[in-house]
Amino acid sequence: MTRPYNFSAGPAAIPDEVLTQAAAEMLDWHGSGMSVMEMSHRGKEFGQIYEEAQADLRELLAIPDHFKCLFMQGGGLGENAIVPMNLSQGKTADFVVTGSWSQKSATEAVRYCPVHEAVNTKSTGYTTLPDPATWPLSDKPAYVHLCSNETITGVEFHELPDLKALGCDAPLVIDFSSQVASRPIDWTRVGLAFGGAQKNLGPAGLTLVVVRDDMLGRALPICPSAFTYRTVADNQSMYNTPPTYAIYVAGLVFKWLKRQGGIAAIEAQNLAKSTLLYEAIDNSALYQNRVEKQARSRMNVPFYLRDESLNEAFLTGARSRHLLQLKGHKSVGGMRASIYNAMPLAGVQALVDYLFDFESQHA
Amino acid sequence: MTRPYNFSAGPAAIPDEVLTQAAAEMLDWHGSGMSVMEMSHRGKEFGQIYEEAQADLRELLAIPDHFKCLFMQGGGLGENAIVPMNLSQGKTADFVVTGSWSQKSATEAVRYCPVHEAVNTKSTGYTTLPDPATWPLSDKPAYVHLCSNETITGVEFHELPDLKALGCDAPLVIDFSSQVASRPIDWTRVGLAFGGAQKNLGPAGLTLVVVRDDMLGRALPICPSAFTYRTVADNQSMYNTPPTYAIYVAGLVFKWLKRQGGIAAIEAQNLAKSTLLYEAIDNSALYQNRVEKQARSRMNVPFYLRDESLNEAFLTGARSRHLLQLKGHKSVGGMRASIYNAMPLAGVQALVDYLFDFESQHA
Repeated sequence: MTRPYNFSAGPAAIPDEVLTQAAAEMLDWHGSGMSVMEMSHRGKEFGQIYEEAQADLRELLAIPDHFKCLFMQGGGLGENAIVPMNLSQGKTADFVVTGSWSQKSATEAVRYCPVHEAVNTKSTGYTTLPDPATWPLSDKPAYVHLCSNETITGVEFHELPDLKALGCDAPLVIDFSSQVASRPIDWTRVGLAFGGAQKNLGPAGLTLVVVRDDMLGRALPICPSAFTYRTVADNQSMYNTPPTYAIYVAGLVFKWLKRQGGIAAIEAQNLAKSTLLYEAIDNSALYQNRVEKQARSRMNVPFYLRDESLNEAFLTGARSRHLLQLKGHKSVGGMRASIYNAMPLAGVQALVDYLFDFESQHA
Repeated sequence: MTRPYNFSAGPAAIPDEVLTQAAAEMLDWHGSGMSVMEMSHRGKEFGQIYEEAQADLRELLAIPDHFKCLFMQGGGLGENAIVPMNLSQGKTADFVVTGSWSQKSATEAVRYCPVHEAVNTKSTGYTTLPDPATWPLSDKPAYVHLCSNETITGVEFHELPDLKALGCDAPLVIDFSSQVASRPIDWTRVGLAFGGAQKNLGPAGLTLVVVRDDMLGRALPICPSAFTYRTVADNQSMYNTPPTYAIYVAGLVFKWLKRQGGIAAIEAQNLAKSTLLYEAIDNSALYQNRVEKQARSRMNVPFYLRDESLNEAFLTGARSRHLLQLKGHKSVGGMRASIYNAMPLAGVQALVDYLFDFESQHA
């Protein structure tokens, strides 16, 4: 069976191999007589699933020992509150606003601490990334927040800022929801990273938080226990019942990633895919990507038809060629191809072929 | 294939039919070419899944129109903070503490409002339910909280208190995590009900909140947007990305419940199952349940071997007869049989047969 190519921005494509294994194990995981959904989270069977997922993820992302890897709930939007409740201590937090996700983070944080928007690229339509050396950071912020890949406009940090080199001792917080596991991370520059699982890691409903040990224990008294990093860490992410099935599927994705050759191999693949797609867009007269070249995302490629009256015909034709979920986010219109880890090069090639054919037909 | 009987307290057994269907649809839901895990939560396919799950649940539980039915994340322990953030307005909340779950709720609420423990049955080992007419409630509490079924000690409210008749105008909040969908609910007595899905509704990672319309819009300013009932309700539970796959599986459970004849039929089944098990325990010389009879739970049946040196032999023998996860909660020891909706009468009969045989062998 050949499945369509699914360009959804998230929840997003899951590798066929992972889904096939999950289906095969649905009624009986490894002879246990139980579905993973039916296991006590404190039993030895789920314990093994959890430990393997943790170990595989730490290995894949090369997470240093002085970071905790937490499996939480609430998604990126939940973390927009949970991070300042845990880290701000009521002091000013700085935000680098380069798209609607970082904007939402800044807006939510106002409930818990003073917020300084050191950068806001809204006037450019969120298509640029100003040089960190030019960021007017606060004197001693509690932390500096950025979104390392903005899913809607397709703007990505290809290098994380070195805050220390910029004279800022504050920890860097990154929302890496749509970037995690697509490329290596320089953990020497990060205090905390969080992301919803539903782009590159697995099903929606699982949130990954990777937090440096010295960030623990700073929570405001009003931070719920279930969302206090110290409490979650001390209970191996089982203070409350974790989203067990989502962790299991994510664990299968981690093993799939290892079979692909790990993050270095998947990064090379992602570079090849995104280069192929951007070149096709740039070499066409019909399609256009509006993001400055050095800030273009490898994960989310928004593009516009210069003749927008063709939008519906474009989407209908795409579906007929089994290219799904290409419609752009409602806030910006146009098209968007999300090409996360699970999208094979063949899928991007099929899209590029379609871009060419559609343009030829409508020249 | 015959699967073992799984007595886990949660995450708990899921009906075979549900798991079989989920496995069959894993790579291609209804010809969409997508797994449910891979669908945008804003697309028409998942929209259909969501709407059917909402409609089926409202029908099953006979939820009146002036209640919202929210699909959230964070579980019961998350709600222990989310409820007082949404409802207390900083005023005193009353707690009826009849077990460790209601105790945790009371302890967590202290972060947000004054807490009055109107009842605390700890001195009885959480084995009793005092008559509501004797509860010393506060003068005008923001709300009164109880746990309608305490999963660990197996204590259940078989009738919810009528606060108005007791002279209290406050809304009643119930944690019905391990009771929901096992029997009808008298919504005229409830302001808000919440529960983790992982006992009677579906996979862990989904939290159900049923809230009366007049309870909305009372949140404290420090309540995270993602956990503000008004915001969640206004966005059809999609303010943040919902746990889509868990909602899908829960939806399959709802359809299974309807095929069983709905809540009245499942209640009759639950009554038959629990009666069978309690009678076997009461009629034995080896086993003992310590809960006062009128407060015994239909869902969670803890029991002790009068000779505790037989505990390990009992559990080993149970496993050899394909009776799984019977060990009691670590805080109380002994055994516990959780017999939620998905446990068939045949499973309880198999347990009762084993209880008899084991006792005969060790008499």
